[in-house]
Amino acid sequence: MKYIDLRSDTVTQPTPNMREAMFNAIVGDDVYGDDPTMRELEEYAAKVVGKEAALFVPSGTFGNQLSLFTHCNRGDEVILGDDCHIVAHEVGAASVIAGVQLRTIVSNKGELDPKEIENRIRKADEDIHFPGTGLICVENAHSNGRVVSLSIMKGIYEVAQKHNVPVHLDGARLFNAATYLGVEAKEITKYCDSVMFCLSKGLCAPVGSILAGSKEFIDKARKNRKLMGGGLRQAGVLAAAGLVALKEMINNLKIDHENAILLGEELSKIDGVKVRKEDMHINMVFFTIKDTGCSSEKLVQGLLDKGIKINGEENGEIRFVTNYWVSKEDVYHVVNCVKEILN
Amino acid sequence: MKYIDLRSDTVTQPTPNMREAMFNAIVGDDVYGDDPTMRELEEYAAKVVGKEAALFVPSGTFGNQLSLFTHCNRGDEVILGDDCHIVAHEVGAASVIAGVQLRTIVSNKGELDPKEIENRIRKADEDIHFPGTGLICVENAHSNGRVVSLSIMKGIYEVAQKHNVPVHLDGARLFNAATYLGVEAKEITKYCDSVMFCLSKGLCAPVGSILAGSKEFIDKARKNRKLMGGGLRQAGVLAAAGLVALKEMINNLKIDHENAILLGEELSKIDGVKVRKEDMHINMVFFTIKDTGCSSEKLVQGLLDKGIKINGEENGEIRFVTNYWVSKEDVYHVVNCVKEILN
Amino acid sequence: MKYIDLRSDTVTQPTPNMREAMFNAIVGDDVYGDDPTMRELEEYAAKVVGKEAALFVPSGTFGNQLSLFTHCNRGDEVILGDDCHIVAHEVGAASVIAGVQLRTIVSNKGELDPKEIENRIRKADEDIHFPGTGLICVENAHSNGRVVSLSIMKGIYEVAQKHNVPVHLDGARLFNAATYLGVEAKEITKYCDSVMFCLSKGLCAPVGSILAGSKEFIDKARKNRKLMGGGLRQAGVLAAAGLVALKEMINNLKIDHENAILLGEELSKIDGVKVRKEDMHINMVFFTIKDTGCSSEKLVQGLLDKGIKINGEENGEIRFVTNYWVSKEDVYHVVNCVKEILN
Amino acid sequence: MKYIDLRSDTVTQPTPNMREAMFNAIVGDDVYGDDPTMRELEEYAAKVVGKEAALFVPSGTFGNQLSLFTHCNRGDEVILGDDCHIVAHEVGAASVIAGVQLRTIVSNKGELDPKEIENRIRKADEDIHFPGTGLICVENAHSNGRVVSLSIMKGIYEVAQKHNVPVHLDGARLFNAATYLGVEAKEITKYCDSVMFCLSKGLCAPVGSILAGSKEFIDKARKNRKLMGGGLRQAGVLAAAGLVALKEMINNLKIDHENAILLGEELSKIDGVKVRKEDMHINMVFFTIKDTGCSSEKLVQGLLDKGIKINGEENGEIRFVTNYWVSKEDVYHVVNCVKEILN
Repeated sequence: MKYIDLRSDTVTQPTPNMREAMFNAIVGDDVYGDDPTMRELEEYAAKVVGKEAALFVPSGTFGNQLSLFTHCNRGDEVILGDDCHIVAHEVGAASVIAGVQLRTIVSNKGELDPKEIENRIRKADEDIHFPGTGLICVENAHSNGRVVSLSIMKGIYEVAQKHNVPVHLDGARLFNAATYLGVEAKEITKYCDSVMFCLSKGLCAPVGSILAGSKEFIDKARKNRKLMGGGLRQAGVLAAAGLVALKEMINNLKIDHENAILLGEELSKIDGVKVRKEDMHINMVFFTIKDTGCSSEKLVQGLLDKGIKINGEENGEIRFVTNYWVSKEDVYHVVNCVKEILN
Repeated sequence: MKYIDLRSDTVTQPTPNMREAMFNAIVGDDVYGDDPTMRELEEYAAKVVGKEAALFVPSGTFGNQLSLFTHCNRGDEVILGDDCHIVAHEVGAASVIAGVQLRTIVSNKGELDPKEIENRIRKADEDIHFPGTGLICVENAHSNGRVVSLSIMKGIYEVAQKHNVPVHLDGARLFNAATYLGVEAKEITKYCDSVMFCLSKGLCAPVGSILAGSKEFIDKARKNRKLMGGGLRQAGVLAAAGLVALKEMINNLKIDHENAILLGEELSKIDGVKVRKEDMHINMVFFTIKDTGCSSEKLVQGLLDKGIKINGEENGEIRFVTNYWVSKEDVYHVVNCVKEILN
Repeated sequence: MKYIDLRSDTVTQPTPNMREAMFNAIVGDDVYGDDPTMRELEEYAAKVVGKEAALFVPSGTFGNQLSLFTHCNRGDEVILGDDCHIVAHEVGAASVIAGVQLRTIVSNKGELDPKEIENRIRKADEDIHFPGTGLICVENAHSNGRVVSLSIMKGIYEVAQKHNVPVHLDGARLFNAATYLGVEAKEITKYCDSVMFCLSKGLCAPVGSILAGSKEFIDKARKNRKLMGGGLRQAGVLAAAGLVALKEMINNLKIDHENAILLGEELSKIDGVKVRKEDMHINMVFFTIKDTGCSSEKLVQGLLDKGIKINGEENGEIRFVTNYWVSKEDVYHVVNCVKEILN
Repeated sequence: MKYIDLRSDTVTQPTPNMREAMFNAIVGDDVYGDDPTMRELEEYAAKVVGKEAALFVPSGTFGNQLSLFTHCNRGDEVILGDDCHIVAHEVGAASVIAGVQLRTIVSNKGELDPKEIENRIRKADEDIHFPGTGLICVENAHSNGRVVSLSIMKGIYEVAQKHNVPVHLDGARLFNAATYLGVEAKEITKYCDSVMFCLSKGLCAPVGSILAGSKEFIDKARKNRKLMGGGLRQAGVLAAAGLVALKEMINNLKIDHENAILLGEELSKIDGVKVRKEDMHINMVFFTIKDTGCSSEKLVQGLLDKGIKINGEENGEIRFVTNYWVSKEDVYHVVNCVKEILN
């Protein structure tokens, strides 16, 4: 049975071109620096985000944690939003691997106030009781479905530079953000010192993410990647798919976004369904079905029976995520199925 | 020159009775469990807070960090207020020693909303992306000068017990809180699983704090104290002063509080001085002098010239702290000196 | 230019069957447990080593460090040989991620004396100054080219069980060890509680290793893998190659070993070349060329010019490693080239 | 009942002069840098060991661990003897607080071979698999009762400087070593970058040790001491005793050593008692009673009944430690009591 899978864009299958590229990839031992396909991917990826150098990592969490570990000394403070992925969905890794203290600030739907950040910046030599701020983290697009504006990105970066604190961008869905903003990715990443973005998710590569930054930073990160167990061998098989992701798939995100808006619009027409329309920036639709009288468990099961996979409620909301393998027709089909179950 | 020192109650000198007790203390090697004065202090201290067992530690920070380290596994999440001492003034130690992830919530002048806490509690087995909540920390009295009510303490403890998460109380100024609430300390500490309180500060002992909890917890903490370098030898010399602190000094805190209120009232009569009167729960007075046109640097220097030590502004406010060595007469003298400088 | 690569067996290219399998792999999101190829690999791998469960990890270092992290509490002691991979070649990761104290013992060419191990085992409750022993690590085959005998494996495991300490086997080259001993891998792994083995190296998979153990251990490790950033998405593309590695490649190791012995024998006939013949258990040949008057740098460059890649001297020795892509004819060709350069 | 206590020199009671000094100590809040007695101690202590600056710490373990934490980055390697206190008796703290990897080498009765050390020194940028060596630790006098020669100290320091690695000296019993060698302490400490020595133990102060080194190092250590919970308030009460220890007690160690030799000589005359005479460098006597047919438990209990405290066997040996409170007459009395029990 072929499923329509709306649980996340992490479920995306590799495209035929990716499979072909993996099959034909020229590979070598990447720990020795011998893998030409990986070298090509890392150079290409660096250019895409306007940084000096880039490094392949096995996952987004790996890339974020490697960045914390490489930017910070143990005990440093990291300022970030209280609802971001690093705080909420990385298993507390920052306290284990980087050994840093998370200093969260209230996020306004993913946007952090530069002034609030500035208030939290501390210097270790200012007071014997203070840790020093080692890093500021921003997430864009945010996993709540919204994109942070360029002016906020700029504001945060200016504060950071004024106080000589680096900025890391968790750009797991960087290209979704760029698509929404109608700019190239490097227009966003010019407001950070390092960026992690995923080749999987909307870009459909099976495995892998990229960490990019200055050459010095990436050299240090490469060493730390080995420590964290992320030194791979013939990694070119994954890099080959990653190159296809970056070269062929970015433009498709626009369609995912359009499909998400279509899905949101159509769902909102169903009685009792409340769609959070103002937050439909990327490929995600958040909505509630409380007023329909139908439980989320029933919806999950009902859709599954019809070949549609969704996740259960989180914080009272259901999230549908569009991706490359979900067509406009699928959207209409899903909406019809939801209607049937709710009525 | 004899100074009036309003910088903090940490500056308190030991009393003559303490010096006498230290001089005469019967001591032994406490790592061998051979120090009778220390044994007496630890037993007495446990009783005072209604816990099974207690342990002497070199400082309040040591006691708090030892508690985090003993309650939690590495990578666990600790829920606490974003303005508490562990977050703000312990040099990021929680990420180094205990290796835990601080999950801060907005504190309403030191009070945490039990519902907010409950929203943040997570179980590690609930979602592969989640760390588990290992501990909830409350601070009472808070270092902002306010006391958390018993009903909030109770509310937090009930939430914690419902979810099987322990509560640690940072009671550096526990007896100030008890004095303000008009109850015995154990009426507060019955709403926590472990408590740290200081023998120094308002109680005037020269060095040391107590960590108290269940026998099992304290046994484990004793081992961890050794790891952290807090296993002392003839520690009875300090325990002797600690016993005087607990037996003789608690009742004096009432006077410190009265002096603080007097100080606050008198300062508020000065033109342009704004005292945060609603927050004068313990021995601290917070005020601003912005409207007087006088800089805080000038006030600090002016008072120092008159034999009065104060700290500079923090977050735009000046803090005066009364203690055992500051008399009612001193209060009037300080107020007169402030007047002179501001006018 | 096609090279003969003797630097390590980590340089092995994937086989055509692997590329085919990757191309056709049925994949899903492995973080959701949805990847059928990965499920198949993990089940198959567990059976091969006679354990309840298995987990794919991105590298051997990742698998070893995940095992330390999962078996031990922070501050535990790990007993292991002073020349093993975890000590020598994992960037000090054990002190960063697992936070454990390595307690090394002298290894006799990779073999550890069970009595020596027993002398180092400590219980945390035995003495307030002692950490507890959390794990014993054995490496087999050892990266020095030798295989540890079954009787030593058994002796260590008996000591470990007597004292209730788990044993982890670093079996990066487990199947080389089994090939040398003429037994199935599970005859070795029955003397350990967990084992890491590589699908790459001699087995030629491009990326990945396996950690296997009890179901309870692997469940815990799966969570910790996420924390360490090793939760992959459509990992089935790698699992497909891993299945080929386990099903088709193990028997080839015998040929690698024969080629290594042939290579050693032929090299030893060259004047001034001293081969460590007694240590040729697997696919590695160690030798010195000091008595030839030729420097190792000259040999490295000379061979490179002839299309043969080798590493430079380490601790005064040169190491040649045979693998699937090095034929018997290649061996003779290499020996001739070495002769030419040395004479 | 007054006991003769031979368990350790950690059991030493403060002298009357120390109690007097503590009683009269002028103190202040040392976290504010306001304690004149502590300032005096730290300046005096720095001079005694010929270093720029010194810092009071609550215990020897605290001082050693603070030194590791301050010298090293997380994941660095520390080279030290496999029988030293940091490895054997500090609860695995180095892996928790400093987060370093201990790289032990075989010690010849406490002496480390400079060449062996040099073989282990690694640079992080030399190989992607290597951690860097962050520190070398030496212990002198060693807790096995022996003193390391100045030529070995010098040899180690020269190797360290050649490779730009700092040396830390665990000098818990530094003055015993100096006494044995017949030199001033600074003749030993000139061969290290930092030194920890105890004011307690043979010098009889009730609580405290000193960490000394360059001004830059101690500034950094002062901050880290706060993180570790070692920032004390009116610590001058302890500093006062420490000053007496340094000014009055060092010369007494000679007598402790003579008493130890006397004790060793006399014990060796008893049938079946074997004294390790060649290791009687300081105030410790190691011996076995196996050939007497008497168990160590019986000896411990028998002596306790006669008012003499000793520890039980460790590694098959009994250790007697002399100290300021054990007189020559006590030695003869102890020997007579041992004789009685063994016969």
